[in-house]
Amino acid sequence: MPSPASPALVIGSIGIDRVATPFAEADQLLGGAASYAAIAASYFAPTRLVGVVGADFPVAFMRRYKKHGLDLAGLQIEPHGKTFYWSGKYREHFEGRDTLEIRLNVFEKFSPTLPAAYRDTPFVMLGAIQPALQHHVLDQLPGGNRRPFVLADTFDLWIHTTKAELLRLLRRIDLFVINEDESLLLTGERNLVLAGRALRKMGPRIVVIKKGAHGSLLFHPEGYFAMSAYPVTKFVDPTGAGDSYAGALIGCLAAANRADFATMKKAVAYATAVSSLTVESFSVNRLSNAGRATIDRRYRELVAMTKL
Amino acid sequence: MPSPASPALVIGSIGIDRVATPFAEADQLLGGAASYAAIAASYFAPTRLVGVVGADFPVAFMRRYKKHGLDLAGLQIEPHGKTFYWSGKYREHFEGRDTLEIRLNVFEKFSPTLPAAYRDTPFVMLGAIQPALQHHVLDQLPGGNRRPFVLADTFDLWIHTTKAELLRLLRRIDLFVINEDESLLLTGERNLVLAGRALRKMGPRIVVIKKGAHGSLLFHPEGYFAMSAYPVTKFVDPTGAGDSYAGALIGCLAAANRADFATMKKAVAYATAVSSLTVESFSVNRLSNAGRATIDRRYRELVAMTKL
Repeated sequence: MPSPASPALVIGSIGIDRVATPFAEADQLLGGAASYAAIAASYFAPTRLVGVVGADFPVAFMRRYKKHGLDLAGLQIEPHGKTFYWSGKYREHFEGRDTLEIRLNVFEKFSPTLPAAYRDTPFVMLGAIQPALQHHVLDQLPGGNRRPFVLADTFDLWIHTTKAELLRLLRRIDLFVINEDESLLLTGERNLVLAGRALRKMGPRIVVIKKGAHGSLLFHPEGYFAMSAYPVTKFVDPTGAGDSYAGALIGCLAAANRADFATMKKAVAYATAVSSLTVESFSVNRLSNAGRATIDRRYRELVAMTKL
Repeated sequence: MPSPASPALVIGSIGIDRVATPFAEADQLLGGAASYAAIAASYFAPTRLVGVVGADFPVAFMRRYKKHGLDLAGLQIEPHGKTFYWSGKYREHFEGRDTLEIRLNVFEKFSPTLPAAYRDTPFVMLGAIQPALQHHVLDQLPGGNRRPFVLADTFDLWIHTTKAELLRLLRRIDLFVINEDESLLLTGERNLVLAGRALRKMGPRIVVIKKGAHGSLLFHPEGYFAMSAYPVTKFVDPTGAGDSYAGALIGCLAAANRADFATMKKAVAYATAVSSLTVESFSVNRLSNAGRATIDRRYRELVAMTKL
């Protein structure tokens, strides 16, 4: 008998982005890890959003959240502040990107207190915010039997600047999602398989290494799984791909209410399908408009194209 | 009823290599695309070798060929010449390699005449020798109903220097095996999926794009297949990985005596297993010593680790 779907909680940055790629640019975009992740998660499970925005946050973005049925009780709106702003530019061949401008605004003092109703959420995603904030959220969640399943993401800045806090975080979480380069940087390994194994020894039972256009690798107590990427041909903007990947993961796990190997493999494949949509437009547009049927179709295509 | 195994023919360079990696170096190594490819093919089908060596070719290398049961009727031994010599050095993180020294020696005037008994070989691999030589071999093979299945490999030098001959070759072959960067260079695409499709339009019914540690992609009239890499943790030297991959492909196809989608997928997985062994030592040592049971075990592991 399948377990009932659990809700998922997503915490992370919410921003207004300006993005330039080698081929196009756009501004006034809904951005931030939590936006991508929560919308992705919402395809699979009821999703609770924790983040902060300013009075300038466009009502169209709020409508976008509502369209996905996000629970916004944890969304702080600062009436006298401005929303986090990020402007970035991708290098040629999308080999890295540079931040052109960043204005933390209301995000600078963000220190969320979870609504009481959120504290029993059984599946929690900590987006790639600073580790101290990730700890602060964990500190508000129950322990013991009621301890939630926790996914955390990070990015290279925290490996460089607050590594000790990040390492301490790793011992408190269940699933760590990290990209290829960051996994090597954090472990000092030169090989992704060894990096994945090393990360599991640092705390999390489950590790996923994302390789962008080359797929992802799952390291689980029950085994190793290699997932190929969806063959995207209309690549527009990679921003948020990793966030929506992680959001889809937590959503799938919440929907199944478990994180065994079979469920994780399926979640990794769904996350692959979801992030393949994210890169086909600026912002969350394609991700949000695609709909569950398109995601399911890509999932089935992924199953078919990797079946020996 | 399974078809009987057919023989495979492999033609390409045979050399004595000196290789330096960021971590180790070795010299007096059996090298050359044909050595790697023929040994790989021999695990699956009776294999005929076409190449040239000089009087200095070590008898130990000849024993290595014989150990694999290679048919050496097509191996020219030039009593007054020296064997092709290559010395190369891999850059840090194996990001590219530089040729330090190359002495063509007997390879300079290599223009093989196939032994009569070889001309009916139904599965032929043209290693990455210059396209004019590849044409020269094709010209000796039968046409019409007795036309063999032809796999060709290439490398970037030929794309830069003899592109017209290479493009003409593509219209004469069935399966083209090429690496990631070369596929983009040759097609002008920026996306591997589009590159694979473009290559199929240039002639070959079937295209395989090799992505090294990220696996490979199969473009076949019956469908698209994405293969993950074997999780190698003891990486020593990538030399010959692509050649042994292609050799395993032609061997598997010869063994099955067909190249439909299901057979090609299985061949791609076996080629992945075989090339994962090649990179675990200098030269053909690990590839040659591993044995079929190890290859079969890695094949089964690949099936398991990619099964959704």
